[in-house]
Amino acid sequence: MIGIILVSHSQKITDGIKEMIEEMIGESPNVEVISCGGTGDGRLGTNSLMILDSINYLANASHILIFGDIGSAILCAETAIDLIDDPNLSGKVTLVDSPLVEGAFAAAVQASVNCTKEEILKEVSSI
Amino acid sequence: MIGIILVSHSQKITDGIKEMIEEMIGESPNVEVISCGGTGDGRLGTNSLMILDSINYLANASHILIFGDIGSAILCAETAIDLIDDPNLSGKVTLVDSPLVEGAFAAAVQASVNCTKEEILKEVSSI
Repeated sequence: MIGIILVSHSQKITDGIKEMIEEMIGESPNVEVISCGGTGDGRLGTNSLMILDSINYLANASHILIFGDIGSAILCAETAIDLIDDPNLSGKVTLVDSPLVEGAFAAAVQASVNCTKEEILKEVSSI
Repeated sequence: MIGIILVSHSQKITDGIKEMIEEMIGESPNVEVISCGGTGDGRLGTNSLMILDSINYLANASHILIFGDIGSAILCAETAIDLIDDPNLSGKVTLVDSPLVEGAFAAAVQASVNCTKEEILKEVSSI
């Protein structure tokens, strides 16, 4: 299973992407998407500890792909990755250099049909 | 004034982008952002007539920039542009080839400091 974590200052944006993905691929055992936008208490902003919790929640995934939108969302995801205790877990995590909506959507569709991490990243890089 | 229209299958996504932009730039006489995601009746999907209404609403803008995310959102925006009656208005409209969140955010920030359309599109193309 591939884990996908969506990071933005806006929870509406990440909730919307998760809904759009789930409408497209339905329930899939191959992919789990976590909406991790906003501060966690309803405000615009980001929260590294919330992202870290999402990473830990996905510890059983074969790979964890993180997608962010603008600068500080990316920085916050990097901080979360730095905070991972377990080197086995941190080795599974990739902060993907792609547009948030378009990249996460393409990755989830690829993951749902059981593509490898390399195939997913190749597809995403073509966006 | 530059008009920016956000198109996605998800209204949550476009509402979230509009909120994020307004948090960043505040009230600006130089830019007006319209969230035009979803079908207009709460479902996931797109609606060319709703996009056309947004274009007509922004008829007094100096330029109207439309940002969409995945394929059919782009197609729906193209259909809306084809449906514009007034050639003066259609000449103001640009469907921007850029990621939705990142492109619209960068464009709005540039527009808020009174950049020209060319300066905005140059900034967006560097994303």
